[in-house]
Amino acid sequence: MTVVDTAHASKTSGWARMAASHPLLEFIDTALRGCGQVIFMDNPLTGFLNLLAMFYGAYAGGTTYAAAIGSVAGTLAATAAARLLRADRGALRKGLYGFNGMLTGAGIATFLDASLLMWVVLIFASAVSTVVALAAENLLRPWKAPGLTFPFVLTVWLVLLAAYKLPGLETTGLPVAALVSRAETAGGLFDAVGLIRASLVSVSQVFFVADPVSGAIFLAALAVHSRWCAGLAAFGAISAVFLALLAGADRAAISHGLWGYSSVLTAPAIGCVFMKPTPGTLFYCAAAALFTVVVQSAASALAQTAGVPPLTFPFVFATWLFLLARPGLEPDAAG
Amino acid sequence: MTVVDTAHASKTSGWARMAASHPLLEFIDTALRGCGQVIFMDNPLTGFLNLLAMFYGAYAGGTTYAAAIGSVAGTLAATAAARLLRADRGALRKGLYGFNGMLTGAGIATFLDASLLMWVVLIFASAVSTVVALAAENLLRPWKAPGLTFPFVLTVWLVLLAAYKLPGLETTGLPVAALVSRAETAGGLFDAVGLIRASLVSVSQVFFVADPVSGAIFLAALAVHSRWCAGLAAFGAISAVFLALLAGADRAAISHGLWGYSSVLTAPAIGCVFMKPTPGTLFYCAAAALFTVVVQSAASALAQTAGVPPLTFPFVFATWLFLLARPGLEPDAAG
Amino acid sequence: MTVVDTAHASKTSGWARMAASHPLLEFIDTALRGCGQVIFMDNPLTGFLNLLAMFYGAYAGGTTYAAAIGSVAGTLAATAAARLLRADRGALRKGLYGFNGMLTGAGIATFLDASLLMWVVLIFASAVSTVVALAAENLLRPWKAPGLTFPFVLTVWLVLLAAYKLPGLETTGLPVAALVSRAETAGGLFDAVGLIRASLVSVSQVFFVADPVSGAIFLAALAVHSRWCAGLAAFGAISAVFLALLAGADRAAISHGLWGYSSVLTAPAIGCVFMKPTPGTLFYCAAAALFTVVVQSAASALAQTAGVPPLTFPFVFATWLFLLARPGLEPDAAG
Repeated sequence: MTVVDTAHASKTSGWARMAASHPLLEFIDTALRGCGQVIFMDNPLTGFLNLLAMFYGAYAGGTTYAAAIGSVAGTLAATAAARLLRADRGALRKGLYGFNGMLTGAGIATFLDASLLMWVVLIFASAVSTVVALAAENLLRPWKAPGLTFPFVLTVWLVLLAAYKLPGLETTGLPVAALVSRAETAGGLFDAVGLIRASLVSVSQVFFVADPVSGAIFLAALAVHSRWCAGLAAFGAISAVFLALLAGADRAAISHGLWGYSSVLTAPAIGCVFMKPTPGTLFYCAAAALFTVVVQSAASALAQTAGVPPLTFPFVFATWLFLLARPGLEPDAAG
Repeated sequence: MTVVDTAHASKTSGWARMAASHPLLEFIDTALRGCGQVIFMDNPLTGFLNLLAMFYGAYAGGTTYAAAIGSVAGTLAATAAARLLRADRGALRKGLYGFNGMLTGAGIATFLDASLLMWVVLIFASAVSTVVALAAENLLRPWKAPGLTFPFVLTVWLVLLAAYKLPGLETTGLPVAALVSRAETAGGLFDAVGLIRASLVSVSQVFFVADPVSGAIFLAALAVHSRWCAGLAAFGAISAVFLALLAGADRAAISHGLWGYSSVLTAPAIGCVFMKPTPGTLFYCAAAALFTVVVQSAASALAQTAGVPPLTFPFVFATWLFLLARPGLEPDAAG
Repeated sequence: MTVVDTAHASKTSGWARMAASHPLLEFIDTALRGCGQVIFMDNPLTGFLNLLAMFYGAYAGGTTYAAAIGSVAGTLAATAAARLLRADRGALRKGLYGFNGMLTGAGIATFLDASLLMWVVLIFASAVSTVVALAAENLLRPWKAPGLTFPFVLTVWLVLLAAYKLPGLETTGLPVAALVSRAETAGGLFDAVGLIRASLVSVSQVFFVADPVSGAIFLAALAVHSRWCAGLAAFGAISAVFLALLAGADRAAISHGLWGYSSVLTAPAIGCVFMKPTPGTLFYCAAAALFTVVVQSAASALAQTAGVPPLTFPFVFATWLFLLARPGLEPDAAG
């Protein structure tokens, strides 16, 4: 999983020299890079801004402080677990064993009510997300494919499903399981402001936050390291919101960012992280971002039957699909 | 995915010489072979007869003209996408990137109501079925296993599930989602005419058609290229219908071909396409065809919970299982 | 799938010499080893004691005689199928193609009502469990991962789901499909006797038996060959029961052994069968056993939606996860 490539090289800043000087600072630097890797960035400043956006989101009411604290606790637990399990040191230092923990922590604290048992489960599950990440890495090695946020998705799905049968864990935040049925036509389009607002909220929903200002900070955190990525993430959000509106999806859900957050990740993944941005790639990236909306809709329907949220599975699925179909990924060609 | 082998070599006909003479004719020849590959035949005449049976089925009321036109549009979109994505030229010319598009087009037009958005989705999804086919090819390479109709199954499942949440797509043709519950005993056996009729309808259901004459044309299209395959497809249909009756399955569904269509494909796949027909293989093929009926029943139950049809997933699953268990497929032995 | 390693070497007993002297005795020895491999033991005495515990369980009312007889029939059918399919002779003689048949036979006879059709399906499905085992072996080869009881889980799930649509198969033993909803708090802890009783019943539930004396015999059967395994199986049961109680799970289900049976298998699998017991491994094993309880809860919720029991899938899933994450399993390291 060392495929994550960034648009321009990281400068040897004063912070980088400081981080190398002391084990505790190095651990903090690793954890911050983990927070940055949620959106593919091996950059502690991106990670710091992402955390800032989480806490601003909690302040603004777009998420809870429990979710923001959970994201910190999850990152630390996952990173510590990776050290205990002696994960590859280079990948570890890039934050590749931290980002699934950050999302696992934020996700569990979003859907389960705070209690001692919840925090114990959150720490344990975030550590297990590293076990899942190592297993996924091993499993995907023959195809040189990245694990993306799948370890987070799998771990949180298991914990949320488990919570249904464990009354010690309260789940007021969980959706109610229901068989699929036709949605009512919602009708009408947004104005330009509504479209931009829904797109920014979509960006923030990658981190379980529903707040346009947080979304703008997350975008800025991306732009700090790669303007291509920031631009493509914005493109992913806008095109997904637009397509969902066109196909008549529920407007309240669109405004809440629930139709765009997966495309926010698919577009940069295909367009500039795992493939080099060329005209052909960008066309391919647009197709992937649009198909992600189809997968988002399908995954919502299936996940509703099971009583869980779809999380970022639509991004994982669409990105795997479009990466695996790319001839350059073929083992014989890559060897 | 070059494992598809045919019972006798293709004659260098006048058509073959003509097709080689002009890019447009070559594209048509490729598309027709794609229509033939739905039932494993690298033969443009088989493909032409399959299309004829689709349109006859629409004329006879066993399907709609939209489904027949959808099958043409889907084949063209998938074949064009394969050229754009620079898929392997040899496999492309054999029609191996067309058949999933043909089924995707027919399937979407069968379950979604005709509208501008539906046709746009149909074309886009058929093109994406080629992305899925390329990904499946890459994914299955370590086992030298074929992708079969899985790209079609996955793509159509995603589109149909997505349609539940997208009111812009009308879905009157979709089944209603329901939890599994015990079926009532239907009782009684068919007479010989009923058995043959249900078997022919099962053959036509491979293409979403419910018509015995269409089924006969599809069988003839097979026989044009391989009598072994035609015979085994008929055997698959008859044995599945018989077994379903014996186990008390719903007679209306059996008559409608919904219990036999997967075995129609499993039997030739195991018996003569991917393995050579020997006494041992034919016994194995019979076991696979019977097990396909179990998988068909199980997949119906699961798919009903999700609110989608099982499509040809039972064929894909049973065929993968019996091919992967075959010692000769083992990488070390095959290397 | 030759990774199964036992704690101490099998003695060349009088029985071993006898078994080598006659094809029929050799077949019986192979079948008995198959019964032993359900709990990882390549030992005919373990297998014999397991069968004894099955029949004692039927006598004591913890299961039915049909399930006990089904376990014998399933073992024989699966072992015979492996010979017919010319499976690897070494693995066959170790019983590695018998244990999934034993569980398939016991499982089908537990959930379906006895009838001629049920017995035909039981024999056929047990034979197919060997096809699934061979396919799983081939599929998992790139990761050198064992198939565990997955072939049994998959085969029985398919047959039970299929039975819903086949009224010829009566299914009074099956749970009723239901969407997930929050469980009520059951409250209160067990006393020590209740804890030990529930743990022993959990051991017996590996074989679909709910009886503490049977559980004790199964543990003794393990101890005959490996005291480490027996100790870890007991640890898995006790820790799972304790954790389920702590998290407020349904007490009746815990007493019935339904929360502990998967950890009974995960703990020895990770702690001494597929990894060598060291302090680090035992800590890892404890984490895996605890995580198995989370997976058990989640799988119960999902399986309930589909209308089937979770079987030993939680063991399979958690064990695969923790084995795949283990650096030593990495192909390049292992090569």
